[in-house]
Amino acid sequence: MSTIEDVAKYSGFSTATVSRVLNNKGPVSEKAVLAVQEAMRQLDYHPNNMARALVMGHSNTIGVILPSHNTYFWNEVAVEMEKSAREIGYHIVFRFAEPDREEIDRCVSDLRASQVSGIIQAAGQREDVVKAANIPILSLISNRDGIPAVVSDDDQGGRLATRHLIERGCTYLVHISGDLSYSNHADQRSFAFIRECEHQGIPYRLYQGYSQQAPEEQCLALIEHIFAETPRLDGIFAGNDIMAARCVSYALSRGIRIPDQLRVVGYDDISISSLLYPPLTTIRQNYKMISATAVRTIVAMANKEQPSEPAPIPVELIVRQTT
Amino acid sequence: MSTIEDVAKYSGFSTATVSRVLNNKGPVSEKAVLAVQEAMRQLDYHPNNMARALVMGHSNTIGVILPSHNTYFWNEVAVEMEKSAREIGYHIVFRFAEPDREEIDRCVSDLRASQVSGIIQAAGQREDVVKAANIPILSLISNRDGIPAVVSDDDQGGRLATRHLIERGCTYLVHISGDLSYSNHADQRSFAFIRECEHQGIPYRLYQGYSQQAPEEQCLALIEHIFAETPRLDGIFAGNDIMAARCVSYALSRGIRIPDQLRVVGYDDISISSLLYPPLTTIRQNYKMISATAVRTIVAMANKEQPSEPAPIPVELIVRQTT
Repeated sequence: MSTIEDVAKYSGFSTATVSRVLNNKGPVSEKAVLAVQEAMRQLDYHPNNMARALVMGHSNTIGVILPSHNTYFWNEVAVEMEKSAREIGYHIVFRFAEPDREEIDRCVSDLRASQVSGIIQAAGQREDVVKAANIPILSLISNRDGIPAVVSDDDQGGRLATRHLIERGCTYLVHISGDLSYSNHADQRSFAFIRECEHQGIPYRLYQGYSQQAPEEQCLALIEHIFAETPRLDGIFAGNDIMAARCVSYALSRGIRIPDQLRVVGYDDISISSLLYPPLTTIRQNYKMISATAVRTIVAMANKEQPSEPAPIPVELIVRQTT
Repeated sequence: MSTIEDVAKYSGFSTATVSRVLNNKGPVSEKAVLAVQEAMRQLDYHPNNMARALVMGHSNTIGVILPSHNTYFWNEVAVEMEKSAREIGYHIVFRFAEPDREEIDRCVSDLRASQVSGIIQAAGQREDVVKAANIPILSLISNRDGIPAVVSDDDQGGRLATRHLIERGCTYLVHISGDLSYSNHADQRSFAFIRECEHQGIPYRLYQGYSQQAPEEQCLALIEHIFAETPRLDGIFAGNDIMAARCVSYALSRGIRIPDQLRVVGYDDISISSLLYPPLTTIRQNYKMISATAVRTIVAMANKEQPSEPAPIPVELIVRQTT
């Protein structure tokens, strides 16, 4: 196996220069960078990140824990975070976890043991676990209990969706929320929905939905139940685009015309939402800004800066053909 | 920071026993496992994986490189791989890469430097890179050039889709393939399509599609072009469910009745395919079996076994309402 000395010899530069190139630190000429990179390629030299991390105490790596459910949304975030990290010389290792204590505990422990600089977590509300981890942690789903968080402006999203349905003439609204038992920041969409309906005197019902990986029959049963229990319903604000698509599909299969008889607004604007028929009206989350802000914040935290908590990221109403 | 000696002392077991628990090796009582785990929690002890990997030469970690396009399919695979790995005591770190040489090169190099036991790669055809990496590599998209691979039975998938359309009475077929310039194993779907059409004397046309992350206008322009150029078209076999959904959506928006005037078969059976309206007929890839086989094979390779190359994983025709 090649060593840093071999690379120095082959490239014609000193080991100090090679080290500066490898660590991307200190002044170094373009010519040296190219020569060292070529030498690394020719000699099949791979710096041992783990040995380096042991010495330097960090690894230029961020750990990200994503939930193994609701994967469409997180997948869009993951790809954007990878891009954002790369731009500032970091890379990301991703883990998936169910939202239960043991799994998140294990992921945090593994990532910490791998010397990541910090962890961005979106898998569940485990403040007790993540606080105990003794490593910078940033949450993408909450901003309670002192864990810094990057979140969307869920209150704005709930308001935009509800007002849009009312402006379109809906007279009886249903909101299908996420699981409210976790006290996620996203719950504010539901609170905004209730507030708007109350404020404008529009009758409404709220149902708790399931995760996107829930069995299809379970979701279908909920939708059947909603339509049976609320026959006056003419507007649905769904907590995510998948649930919105399920509602649209169910309504069409029952001969209910969209948007004439039923209007539907989703949430997220995952990439399939525009290619459904009819294309889905939805609240677009700003994936790029969420991701860039999260990466920038966790790196600042890892560098012992005390970044101020970022403001909620604005969302946007995208009007398509289901309203 | 706590040490292994602290854990031994707190738990009342020897450091040898603690080490056996940590490494999941050798005989150890249930009681010891619980006591050591409790001690680790109480003392906030995190074994340093990197130091351990340096000593042991491996990390019980598998690296997986996924493409940052066509993410819906790979996302389903990723979640299943995580589960399969966990069952045999491994965990997975995921990286995303564009299918270009430099990026895959960088990912392989990073993962190798992190002492992963092996790499499963699905991001592109870079046999030259992965061969040079000097670490077990398994491909999920090809089985050429001596890189072991786990792939679906794409020939079977192409046959099933094409025969189904012909059996339903289609008289002029269009196939929208993936990008054929990479010589992926998936190309066999297209070859099977051509063979079946030729064999049964059905006129057909083949168009190369774009990746799922291609701009929407580009995909729409292709579909418009296909419908304009092939007015007799009454059956489409799309290379993936997203493209199939786009075709269905386009046809419905033009007043073309599905399945009366146009039949559409997708590929993959990603989880949204059943909730589209009308629900999509498609070829289901066996995500669980692909993932379990890939994980088992890369671990065998890492253990210097020489596993025989797994047979292509069978696929299945799922008939829904677009045919």
